[in-house]
Amino acid sequence: MRALVKTFAQPGLTITTWADPTPSVTEVVVRVKATSLCGTDVHIYKWDEWAQSRIHPPRIIGHELCGEVIETGAEVTLVKKGDYVAAESHLTCGICFQCRTGQAHVCKNYRILGIDRDGSFAEYVKLPQSVLWKTSHDIPPEHACVQEPLGNAVDAALAEGVTGQTVLITGCGPTGLFAAAVARTSGAAMIIASDMSEYRLDLAKQVGVDHVLNAKTDTPDSLTATVREMTAGEGVDAALEMSGDPMALHHVFRAVKNGGRVTLFGIPTGSVSFDLPNEIIFKGIRVYGVTGRRLFGTWYRLTGLFKAGLNIKPIITHTLPMTEFAKGFDLIKSGQCGKVVLFP
Amino acid sequence: MRALVKTFAQPGLTITTWADPTPSVTEVVVRVKATSLCGTDVHIYKWDEWAQSRIHPPRIIGHELCGEVIETGAEVTLVKKGDYVAAESHLTCGICFQCRTGQAHVCKNYRILGIDRDGSFAEYVKLPQSVLWKTSHDIPPEHACVQEPLGNAVDAALAEGVTGQTVLITGCGPTGLFAAAVARTSGAAMIIASDMSEYRLDLAKQVGVDHVLNAKTDTPDSLTATVREMTAGEGVDAALEMSGDPMALHHVFRAVKNGGRVTLFGIPTGSVSFDLPNEIIFKGIRVYGVTGRRLFGTWYRLTGLFKAGLNIKPIITHTLPMTEFAKGFDLIKSGQCGKVVLFP
Amino acid sequence: MRALVKTFAQPGLTITTWADPTPSVTEVVVRVKATSLCGTDVHIYKWDEWAQSRIHPPRIIGHELCGEVIETGAEVTLVKKGDYVAAESHLTCGICFQCRTGQAHVCKNYRILGIDRDGSFAEYVKLPQSVLWKTSHDIPPEHACVQEPLGNAVDAALAEGVTGQTVLITGCGPTGLFAAAVARTSGAAMIIASDMSEYRLDLAKQVGVDHVLNAKTDTPDSLTATVREMTAGEGVDAALEMSGDPMALHHVFRAVKNGGRVTLFGIPTGSVSFDLPNEIIFKGIRVYGVTGRRLFGTWYRLTGLFKAGLNIKPIITHTLPMTEFAKGFDLIKSGQCGKVVLFP
Amino acid sequence: MRALVKTFAQPGLTITTWADPTPSVTEVVVRVKATSLCGTDVHIYKWDEWAQSRIHPPRIIGHELCGEVIETGAEVTLVKKGDYVAAESHLTCGICFQCRTGQAHVCKNYRILGIDRDGSFAEYVKLPQSVLWKTSHDIPPEHACVQEPLGNAVDAALAEGVTGQTVLITGCGPTGLFAAAVARTSGAAMIIASDMSEYRLDLAKQVGVDHVLNAKTDTPDSLTATVREMTAGEGVDAALEMSGDPMALHHVFRAVKNGGRVTLFGIPTGSVSFDLPNEIIFKGIRVYGVTGRRLFGTWYRLTGLFKAGLNIKPIITHTLPMTEFAKGFDLIKSGQCGKVVLFP
Repeated sequence: MRALVKTFAQPGLTITTWADPTPSVTEVVVRVKATSLCGTDVHIYKWDEWAQSRIHPPRIIGHELCGEVIETGAEVTLVKKGDYVAAESHLTCGICFQCRTGQAHVCKNYRILGIDRDGSFAEYVKLPQSVLWKTSHDIPPEHACVQEPLGNAVDAALAEGVTGQTVLITGCGPTGLFAAAVARTSGAAMIIASDMSEYRLDLAKQVGVDHVLNAKTDTPDSLTATVREMTAGEGVDAALEMSGDPMALHHVFRAVKNGGRVTLFGIPTGSVSFDLPNEIIFKGIRVYGVTGRRLFGTWYRLTGLFKAGLNIKPIITHTLPMTEFAKGFDLIKSGQCGKVVLFP
Repeated sequence: MRALVKTFAQPGLTITTWADPTPSVTEVVVRVKATSLCGTDVHIYKWDEWAQSRIHPPRIIGHELCGEVIETGAEVTLVKKGDYVAAESHLTCGICFQCRTGQAHVCKNYRILGIDRDGSFAEYVKLPQSVLWKTSHDIPPEHACVQEPLGNAVDAALAEGVTGQTVLITGCGPTGLFAAAVARTSGAAMIIASDMSEYRLDLAKQVGVDHVLNAKTDTPDSLTATVREMTAGEGVDAALEMSGDPMALHHVFRAVKNGGRVTLFGIPTGSVSFDLPNEIIFKGIRVYGVTGRRLFGTWYRLTGLFKAGLNIKPIITHTLPMTEFAKGFDLIKSGQCGKVVLFP
Repeated sequence: MRALVKTFAQPGLTITTWADPTPSVTEVVVRVKATSLCGTDVHIYKWDEWAQSRIHPPRIIGHELCGEVIETGAEVTLVKKGDYVAAESHLTCGICFQCRTGQAHVCKNYRILGIDRDGSFAEYVKLPQSVLWKTSHDIPPEHACVQEPLGNAVDAALAEGVTGQTVLITGCGPTGLFAAAVARTSGAAMIIASDMSEYRLDLAKQVGVDHVLNAKTDTPDSLTATVREMTAGEGVDAALEMSGDPMALHHVFRAVKNGGRVTLFGIPTGSVSFDLPNEIIFKGIRVYGVTGRRLFGTWYRLTGLFKAGLNIKPIITHTLPMTEFAKGFDLIKSGQCGKVVLFP
Repeated sequence: MRALVKTFAQPGLTITTWADPTPSVTEVVVRVKATSLCGTDVHIYKWDEWAQSRIHPPRIIGHELCGEVIETGAEVTLVKKGDYVAAESHLTCGICFQCRTGQAHVCKNYRILGIDRDGSFAEYVKLPQSVLWKTSHDIPPEHACVQEPLGNAVDAALAEGVTGQTVLITGCGPTGLFAAAVARTSGAAMIIASDMSEYRLDLAKQVGVDHVLNAKTDTPDSLTATVREMTAGEGVDAALEMSGDPMALHHVFRAVKNGGRVTLFGIPTGSVSFDLPNEIIFKGIRVYGVTGRRLFGTWYRLTGLFKAGLNIKPIITHTLPMTEFAKGFDLIKSGQCGKVVLFP
């Protein structure tokens, strides 16, 4: 089969021919219909420090996908040939405290598709049945494949319900935009979003954000002041930090109201200093660290959100044949894109 | 002033002239712009057993209103002359366990507007500042006055969040319809509603219900079977009983999925028998008794829902001058209406 | 091996010799150290209508156990030979909505040990590794084997936390007594318990219940009045119905305060009539149907409770060699016992 | 009357004669039986930067008290002469978003007793009825007066329930010790506490802490390793940061398990740097900023905890006549004390 492989311990990826996968008794083979690029793939492509410490070439990368089940192991009961599926990318151990208490998304022993085993940037991918998610044919492949990062956005946005609430989202990368779309469908009273890119703020408007703030041109103080003003002096009920930018991190804590909540999802590159008394303690707020997606509560929830009219179409800005993967990585580097999807 | 009064201990109401109210230091006088009819008012109008035991004529009735503040007591700080307000109808004691722990809606000593003191079916009404709710001028009076019963619907629908969930609503009277509208705005995946009136099922469709079921023509078993079928055999995540009808009460328990939740809001007239093991215990469900509205969390939430696009317009089917109150009560008796609003 | 078997479709059980179990690759064999009698076993022993419809003889019954792992299938990783284990009695499907969203205790397809497959009233029992619970050697076998029903009590008592709360428990059978012990360890402010048996009320006192009420000698009205008086007129924060008795069912709803919560665990034999408005709706309460135990959150929690000093010793009133099983069933029939444990 | 007053804008306090207070119609006068020293009082005594910016002399300080109601304003209904009361120290506005939604402890406009109006270091104190808390005569004055800081500990410990959970507490000042006592009474499985003072670690043992760690002699890494070891490699379910010490702040985030929760209560003096990905985000934890006490849910809860056997006696290490206040402040400076109580 054709696959996109980190062949050697160096920058770049190679389109090459690879052996077709063979499933074990509890695995299936999926013909990949669409597979999308994630920030993690960029790290591996660039071969940065993190990638060097984590990836052992050769490795087919990619972990956001959808496709058709074409072969099933003898003990597979969850799906059958012909089913249209997406996949959870975390292969969890099933026996640790977290796995046995409904918190498998923070399993202490999880392995990740496209990192710890061969991934989805290929014509076919082998997957354990336990990670499969049957998907409605109403959802086109370029939307179905992004359910994995969409799940992150669901948990970031809905760590607590946002119905009737004011919401601030700092960072309009794909997951921030997904979170905005989720908050819109969930009945948020008002959504304010900030980013440094006009291109992405325009996408934010397209998914229903009420007010966009340019964090490049505005000062931190003016951003906070603007949010206060938009919320009649209260601050927002919920602030979602989706960028990892230190300035944005302070912005969410300043903009959230006393007794409100903050979700931390974006990953800053170094350590960040906080004024804990004024940013967290005296405000009496709740802070949620969000990583991964709840297996499988979040998947059910996002399926329900699609039925409720969730509109992610504007966020899928580019679809490319897998052979043009380099163009996809360039787009991400430029920031002039939402989600980039490859067709193998 | 002109007022609609239960003058004597007998059926009916009288339009008459009444003394203008004078506020105490912590009260205000509101010029009533719109005031809506509630089932409670019907009981008082008909002078049934409950009304006879509870109402001491003469009494101006009515407890759903909006209007303009025209006079304020010396110690009033929450509002000022000219403010556009609605009002919570429960005057709570402020010192019982429930009041001191955020559950004032089930205060053990509450008094109700239009029952325990003069109400809103009048040109002017006197209200303690503590029950006032400032309302945006964007909301027309015939919508602003129904925020009180809308609050019931908010708490019934959102006892737990419904974002991405399947919802069954039994009973499409005004509060059931409001609950449907709230669930729609909150991102419910699918809303199924049942009633015995085609007129009301039509209103349900207008507020965004996906599937309507006629409980008059369908058998209880077929209703349950239909809900199961619509939910791929699962049953619904959330079932809201808004009718008080015994058949509907069994329908919600049968239609809810294992581990789901039921809200009980409709008031049955006599006692009702349940098969507790199969209807509640073995299903591992949560059941919420809902009465009143959370002071004032629910009011904030419904304000947020209006901003999120909550559409209650189809539910306000009739607006009448207060002098035509008898026509309003006739409409309610006929069932050929949603909410009926009077203009004093 | 020696086993206690429902050999034929008729009342009674037979001690007999049975083939030793052989584990599949994902199963283990446990040498049973202790196994306790449950009300379900009584139904099977008596061969009542329910048992006739559910049990297919021959069947080794029993589902509450502890013991030592003596043989493990090739793919077993969770435990090893020599481990001291108890077991969850529900074998859940792992793929239904409930199983995939942390509600496996209400799995739609579960099978039960000692009902749908051979159980623990035997020298050895074969179990899938997924139901095993490693237990500290600090806990003696006659305590370790009752962790299964103790888990029910944990979920009944702690459907919401009881720390600092007043708690009413109606029904002092073993699970009611376990719930009392759990509430005591959890920092309940006051525990009131009712039963019709002085023997069991005496056990209640031994596990730390503050006040016991005899439901045989007191009228329903006086029981409610007494609870009101003990709680300064408030009613209790949490009421746990552990008996299934209709009078007790009304007692919990009358005794719980406005805004409080009720757990329904006891199984009434027929349908029961309720005054929903006054018993649930106008009180604004939450009602939890509790069945089974959360897999495995509850098991972790009960392990923690043992460390916190949970005292169940007075509840284990009788230990017998398995050959004296008939005496055990007689004890349960007489009501003059707490939990009865058999040693195979 | 005799009072302890910050007379001038300089370090120190003066015992002096002051006018007896006169209540307004909604206020009462309380004869102070006991009043305890808080860290806030130390700041005012030392006249540090914060105190200079916040206190306007002359001011009677002190905000932790109990006493007897000796005079009541005409509209006071909550208490009567002779009642034994403690008091919430936050005088909240009652009309802001937080006050109207059950979050008055983070009221945007609150005023504090002993800071914004005359406090409790005096023979008599004037208090609005709304802050009073009727207390059982079973609780001696030196315990009753500390209910205010005890309430902080209740909210810190019980931001989520700890029944059956492992708990780490960093910082064994009075509030940390109170939190340990609360966790013990609430059925924590294991409590680990750290501090730099052997004196305070000894107090921790006296209130039931299972394991104490000396943060002065142990390295941060060894502290984390020890907690991991004590919890079988898991980390703790709940970590309460009660010291404000930067090293302790990192310790709680490292010691908490994936999916666990952290309470931040201690106030660091400057900003603190965090490795957010590894300390919060990838762990998928919940962080609660805790300040003040819930009005009045927390007060009810602590009353229930006293009934459940809460033992705070070892924490009240010193009781002094008010005239010896300087000795009390010296004790706090030395760290060789728990809570210091003054008798006016």
